[in-house]
Amino acid sequence: MPTDHLFSHIVTTDELLAATGDSAWLAAMLDAEAALARAEAHAGVISAEVASAIAAGCKSEAFDVEEIGRQARDGGNPVIPLVSRLREVVGPGARDFVHWGATSQDILDTAAVLVARRSGRVIDAGLLRLADSCATLADSHRSTVMAGRTLLQPAVPITFGMKAAGWLGGVIDARQALAAALDGLAVQLGGAAGTLASLGSRGPEVVSAFAGELGLPEPVMPWHTARERTASLAAALGLVAGTSAKIAGDVALLMQHEVGEAFEPGGPGQGGSSTMPHKSNPVGAAAVGAATRRAHALVCLFFESLSGEHERHVTSWPVEWQSLGELLALTGGAVARTAETVGGLEVVAGAMAERVRALAGLLLAERVSLALAPRMGRSEAAAAVAEAGRRATDTSAGALVASLMSDPRAAEVIQAPELEDLMDPAGYLGSSEVWIDRVLARHAEMSR
Amino acid sequence: MPTDHLFSHIVTTDELLAATGDSAWLAAMLDAEAALARAEAHAGVISAEVASAIAAGCKSEAFDVEEIGRQARDGGNPVIPLVSRLREVVGPGARDFVHWGATSQDILDTAAVLVARRSGRVIDAGLLRLADSCATLADSHRSTVMAGRTLLQPAVPITFGMKAAGWLGGVIDARQALAAALDGLAVQLGGAAGTLASLGSRGPEVVSAFAGELGLPEPVMPWHTARERTASLAAALGLVAGTSAKIAGDVALLMQHEVGEAFEPGGPGQGGSSTMPHKSNPVGAAAVGAATRRAHALVCLFFESLSGEHERHVTSWPVEWQSLGELLALTGGAVARTAETVGGLEVVAGAMAERVRALAGLLLAERVSLALAPRMGRSEAAAAVAEAGRRATDTSAGALVASLMSDPRAAEVIQAPELEDLMDPAGYLGSSEVWIDRVLARHAEMSR
Amino acid sequence: MPTDHLFSHIVTTDELLAATGDSAWLAAMLDAEAALARAEAHAGVISAEVASAIAAGCKSEAFDVEEIGRQARDGGNPVIPLVSRLREVVGPGARDFVHWGATSQDILDTAAVLVARRSGRVIDAGLLRLADSCATLADSHRSTVMAGRTLLQPAVPITFGMKAAGWLGGVIDARQALAAALDGLAVQLGGAAGTLASLGSRGPEVVSAFAGELGLPEPVMPWHTARERTASLAAALGLVAGTSAKIAGDVALLMQHEVGEAFEPGGPGQGGSSTMPHKSNPVGAAAVGAATRRAHALVCLFFESLSGEHERHVTSWPVEWQSLGELLALTGGAVARTAETVGGLEVVAGAMAERVRALAGLLLAERVSLALAPRMGRSEAAAAVAEAGRRATDTSAGALVASLMSDPRAAEVIQAPELEDLMDPAGYLGSSEVWIDRVLARHAEMSR
Amino acid sequence: MPTDHLFSHIVTTDELLAATGDSAWLAAMLDAEAALARAEAHAGVISAEVASAIAAGCKSEAFDVEEIGRQARDGGNPVIPLVSRLREVVGPGARDFVHWGATSQDILDTAAVLVARRSGRVIDAGLLRLADSCATLADSHRSTVMAGRTLLQPAVPITFGMKAAGWLGGVIDARQALAAALDGLAVQLGGAAGTLASLGSRGPEVVSAFAGELGLPEPVMPWHTARERTASLAAALGLVAGTSAKIAGDVALLMQHEVGEAFEPGGPGQGGSSTMPHKSNPVGAAAVGAATRRAHALVCLFFESLSGEHERHVTSWPVEWQSLGELLALTGGAVARTAETVGGLEVVAGAMAERVRALAGLLLAERVSLALAPRMGRSEAAAAVAEAGRRATDTSAGALVASLMSDPRAAEVIQAPELEDLMDPAGYLGSSEVWIDRVLARHAEMSR
Repeated sequence: MPTDHLFSHIVTTDELLAATGDSAWLAAMLDAEAALARAEAHAGVISAEVASAIAAGCKSEAFDVEEIGRQARDGGNPVIPLVSRLREVVGPGARDFVHWGATSQDILDTAAVLVARRSGRVIDAGLLRLADSCATLADSHRSTVMAGRTLLQPAVPITFGMKAAGWLGGVIDARQALAAALDGLAVQLGGAAGTLASLGSRGPEVVSAFAGELGLPEPVMPWHTARERTASLAAALGLVAGTSAKIAGDVALLMQHEVGEAFEPGGPGQGGSSTMPHKSNPVGAAAVGAATRRAHALVCLFFESLSGEHERHVTSWPVEWQSLGELLALTGGAVARTAETVGGLEVVAGAMAERVRALAGLLLAERVSLALAPRMGRSEAAAAVAEAGRRATDTSAGALVASLMSDPRAAEVIQAPELEDLMDPAGYLGSSEVWIDRVLARHAEMSR
Repeated sequence: MPTDHLFSHIVTTDELLAATGDSAWLAAMLDAEAALARAEAHAGVISAEVASAIAAGCKSEAFDVEEIGRQARDGGNPVIPLVSRLREVVGPGARDFVHWGATSQDILDTAAVLVARRSGRVIDAGLLRLADSCATLADSHRSTVMAGRTLLQPAVPITFGMKAAGWLGGVIDARQALAAALDGLAVQLGGAAGTLASLGSRGPEVVSAFAGELGLPEPVMPWHTARERTASLAAALGLVAGTSAKIAGDVALLMQHEVGEAFEPGGPGQGGSSTMPHKSNPVGAAAVGAATRRAHALVCLFFESLSGEHERHVTSWPVEWQSLGELLALTGGAVARTAETVGGLEVVAGAMAERVRALAGLLLAERVSLALAPRMGRSEAAAAVAEAGRRATDTSAGALVASLMSDPRAAEVIQAPELEDLMDPAGYLGSSEVWIDRVLARHAEMSR
Repeated sequence: MPTDHLFSHIVTTDELLAATGDSAWLAAMLDAEAALARAEAHAGVISAEVASAIAAGCKSEAFDVEEIGRQARDGGNPVIPLVSRLREVVGPGARDFVHWGATSQDILDTAAVLVARRSGRVIDAGLLRLADSCATLADSHRSTVMAGRTLLQPAVPITFGMKAAGWLGGVIDARQALAAALDGLAVQLGGAAGTLASLGSRGPEVVSAFAGELGLPEPVMPWHTARERTASLAAALGLVAGTSAKIAGDVALLMQHEVGEAFEPGGPGQGGSSTMPHKSNPVGAAAVGAATRRAHALVCLFFESLSGEHERHVTSWPVEWQSLGELLALTGGAVARTAETVGGLEVVAGAMAERVRALAGLLLAERVSLALAPRMGRSEAAAAVAEAGRRATDTSAGALVASLMSDPRAAEVIQAPELEDLMDPAGYLGSSEVWIDRVLARHAEMSR
Repeated sequence: MPTDHLFSHIVTTDELLAATGDSAWLAAMLDAEAALARAEAHAGVISAEVASAIAAGCKSEAFDVEEIGRQARDGGNPVIPLVSRLREVVGPGARDFVHWGATSQDILDTAAVLVARRSGRVIDAGLLRLADSCATLADSHRSTVMAGRTLLQPAVPITFGMKAAGWLGGVIDARQALAAALDGLAVQLGGAAGTLASLGSRGPEVVSAFAGELGLPEPVMPWHTARERTASLAAALGLVAGTSAKIAGDVALLMQHEVGEAFEPGGPGQGGSSTMPHKSNPVGAAAVGAATRRAHALVCLFFESLSGEHERHVTSWPVEWQSLGELLALTGGAVARTAETVGGLEVVAGAMAERVRALAGLLLAERVSLALAPRMGRSEAAAAVAEAGRRATDTSAGALVASLMSDPRAAEVIQAPELEDLMDPAGYLGSSEVWIDRVLARHAEMSR
């Protein structure tokens, strides 16, 4: 909380700091109060003149967010001092109708929804940039063969385009989850304990108008103690952050000097070290990873907040406030930095190709083994290929072919030219292009 | 892990232990191998005879789960020894085509999906029982007035029916989330690194047939490293558990001796103490709460598992296995016990009524204050009511009326009979019946 | 992060916001740079004049924390721009020796240690106030009998003094854990990868002088990737926060209107509601609980940060920075608010006594049962008392006595006067005074 | 919980499964009941004969753990049915004095302490093996130069011995933390609500004798609701697991094919793949990482359990039971597997040397830059070296020297022979030997 200025720029953006900061919350609470007044005028609970006066008073400039924050301590939430101040601002005629029928939670929950939706649009724009960049890579590198790596060890060939398509698939799923969670965020209006008793029989009409004023959905009933909405939002943000961290983490591994197959975009000063002039550190991945871990720690709080006491939760509710702002800022920060990384990624296709060449004896071992299986039996084939690999002078295609041909069991059933054909990595890419096309089609569909 | 027998019955059920246990995973892995063989026969990759032989071998009886478990240590997953054993079982003709084109993760992920869907049906049945019980309470107690409590303090009147409707609203949301997450669980089939290279160009056809065999959706592309599906499932289970804990926790608070407004069903031995014969402990709530906290700790692991290395995650993947089984068992246990609590809930309507009577001077203070507001000004009215409350001899309606009438500012604008009318809690329930009807309608719709 | 002003005052204090904020970190980093220069002069690595010039430049006024924060993004940490700026400030003669031999992590880790120790003193002062207040209550209420409650149900009599002694015992343990963790926080100085190679053979001497300059312990070797120290600190803070939440939570339960045995101190506006004039909300407990949950979520991040890559962790290290500041601020906030609650606690001894009177038939049931056991057999006695309880007209002592005496099995072995003696709660307090004396003695010892 | 057999062998050992399993808990609960009886005889509360009879009945063979587990559901804990069964076993004379004065929590908490201490010994033995193996590597590889890597990029030279010393330093700290936490685990004995009222004034004497019987410390007062002890234990286990994961993770990174500097011990079948004969997967690291993440998720539950209600926690207490067993088993499993990895580590010193040779132009750039600084100015030197690095034909020492000598600014102040001397990595290891000696000395001290 107290280190906005020094550390926050590493993990989030100015746009998100603004969308989730003190002023954004203040504006959202005032939007809720103004919408409440207008909705009550619409339902005939208060007069149109009074509503106009209240709405006119709901301007951030008249409120000192720091002062309201200090006064929030005694009553335990900032709506109490906000309403006091709003009454002063509004003046005698309308003052008594400010916050009519509402409770602090109505305003704060509705404000949280507004903050989440507004920040959510920023996050989604980042996700779209990220998805587009992944799509571009998937398409343009559909034939860029590289080593597939499982448990950090070379496995079989893949293409870099397929790797990017896999990233894109995750981003698409995360975007959909976020959109669904944001769409589910409804207004909250229930009064002191959810009955809206002080509105008599006009409660439902006011709720409906309140939702209309704010452009938000109307809930089936007030959700002050049914926190599935906020927990679902937190979970969706956790998905989004995690999806970003997967991508950024893959890049950090590819950037290792010993691998050197892709690099974060490196303008001057990016990833440098003050003492080691050659360093090219994965600072983007470090930032995305740090933002994501912190985001995930916050997500867990929202599951815990599902349970709480009776008609208003003692602890579970106040836990949500700063946690939500931070979660939005960190998740959006992870997305934005990952989009920057993928958008400017330096793909070193030459290094990928050279590695595939050097490791072809390993990467194609499965293929050779399966080709020999019908001729020798599967386990015998596997054993022969494994032994040949151990005897080979290196991991190249040629060395494996030579080694295998020196094994009479293999030499009896296969000739060198056929083996050499089998060692072409581009011929062992299976369905990778199909996957790329399918994911790109889905992305295109979602972008329409 | 190692204390199934001693402690598990407190937090889950036999049905769920069976659905998530060793044998369930073994059967699911064998189902996946059998379906793979049949799918490959369908696509012409292997012959129908071979597929039949393999499928015939996929019977749990021929496998010693403990032995497979021991052998799993070296290779890091149980599919490797399972496949070895399956080859023995299947015999010479078909042996070489067992597990053709697949990798361990294909089988284990698909098995996890099967375990989750099968357990998910058990959990959903529990959720439906819970929803039905909440619905019954919501309807039958729509006129049972009780004290609404916010931050554990009496606020305004509500009905017990509305409280139950609020519970039901949460259950409905959680059910929908779970159903959506389960529906999204697709087969996984990608081979060594996702390309299905060993199936040549027949990969997509085999995946499609594999999905068809198992009655599962087909993914856009293999999801071995895009774990949004499992994380979404975990999040939905976290919602379900948390929703249960909210309900069970409310009951525990109502059961307090000093409150005494509702009780967990108490057959002989339920909630008893060995030394204090009178105890009626909220053992259901304790169990639901314990199961839920542990479930939530597990949920967090699935967010962490979204990120991992390249084409197979080193740590993030094995973290999922036991975590998923436990998460399903604990969540289902929380639901089942909550359903039992709500289904047999002893509602002490008399105690609710007596408390409302005794606290009417508090519970209706807001109403009186709002009624006086147009006549005295809002803050003056609030102050007068607050002072009257402090001067009143007790918290009853009569005491507040008497106290207020002794205040000349109030006595000038209102008479005792009007005040007494205002003190009728049944007249200050606002939209509670509307909310109940709406939630019941939504429940009815979902049950159709 | 971005909502310092609006929400932070609810969960922490101005003193802690200052001790953990941007300026505190800036000052600590500059203290580390100054101490490094002086230590290197001491070891003859740089001249005394140069060291003086550097130290003179390490004044916060010359640094714009916001500008440094913005520049931190590219290199991934704020030390890089801080050192650049320090070089400008220091001027030509000494500029080249700024940050000599150090790496960013040396400065940031040492600064974190300074921030933690300085904030730790504030937290400990709060813990001492809290401990003193608990001790006062334990001593003064050693004879205030109240209902002991297990699983939220009345069990046997205790005293409020013993309850406070139990709180105090926890606070003492937490204080010791925090002190030990803070004492273990050593300077970090290792250079680029821990060898201090650029200092030649003078590394150990410089580390020792560096520690001496800052009044901090010297580590056995650099701990840049062995994060047991920071994880232990986080764990100790988690203990401290949790201990506070236990106490604050007990008060919230005692404040329930239906219980009414103790209240948070309520000056004007404390715990009030804008619409319900009578409300006395446990806002202290809500704040302490919210701060604690968020603190605990942050603690978990430090366990995760124990593992990381090689000689500097990619993600695990940057996760620590803001997390540490928040964790200190939230934990200290929880302590301060709990100290305030306990220091000003309104203990309603009359309500405790009245409840004990009303529930004596329950609270002493165990005692009666044990007294009857040698005369009737233990299970027969338990059964007879349980039945008598069910038949009794209420839960008072008299009702239980009457009910029991109407049971011939009991009447045969005990007379009413003996039973009435057994029903004296003050006679069934066991070792409560011994526990109080022991805990007070331990507190006195620690305060010496 | 329900998948002991299939997955547990991957993440833990038979010894730990036994030490933390159903039978271990049953035995520990019976040990507690027997010790209680003996302690009460010692204090004259019950007769020596009765105590002998009870102690004689406390033999696991007479108890069906599965049956007790099933019966545990109703009362919410297994002590209630255990005591019933013990009464049957003990027979008429002593039956009534079984469990005298105790409550379920006394037995279960004391049993948890016994289980933790017994498992703790197993874990500590693993830690000692791990420490010894690290010490051996630190000593024998004190001159094995390798690339230090920060943020996954080559930095400056270190030795593999220093890396192992860093691992050892962490293990020593974790061992100390675990030992301290285990030592703090005291007996719990408080009766129904902590007063030990049913023991009259003999409570403290019985507690003392109870502790003596079990060889455990005596607490200042009962700690049924002050859970600092169990939370501290959990935190220490979290440290231990995290320390293991750091080591195992470093090995996984070194095992990457592109790095190839160290390998997990690979007997037949270790780390193999069913389809790719060449695979050498880091299955040890995967298992350690998975065990550690799950352990850390469980640790968090114990912080949450610090707070709870009054004299017995509703949810916070039952959360601890299975969580503790799992946490011990997983932590011990992580330690055992890491000890196995380090104990049999294949260190490929040749690959380390070859990489240092190939990267000397990078690894020594800092050294060259610092050597030029006094002659050219620090930033000019850094710039010249960085430029030379970019112009160099490769990353070798020779290439950097050639490139630098072609820069007139450098050539003016330094000659090739001096530069070539600077490029000797063995001359730029700073204090690495000092650190190794210090850590080894500390290890030797702790092992005495």
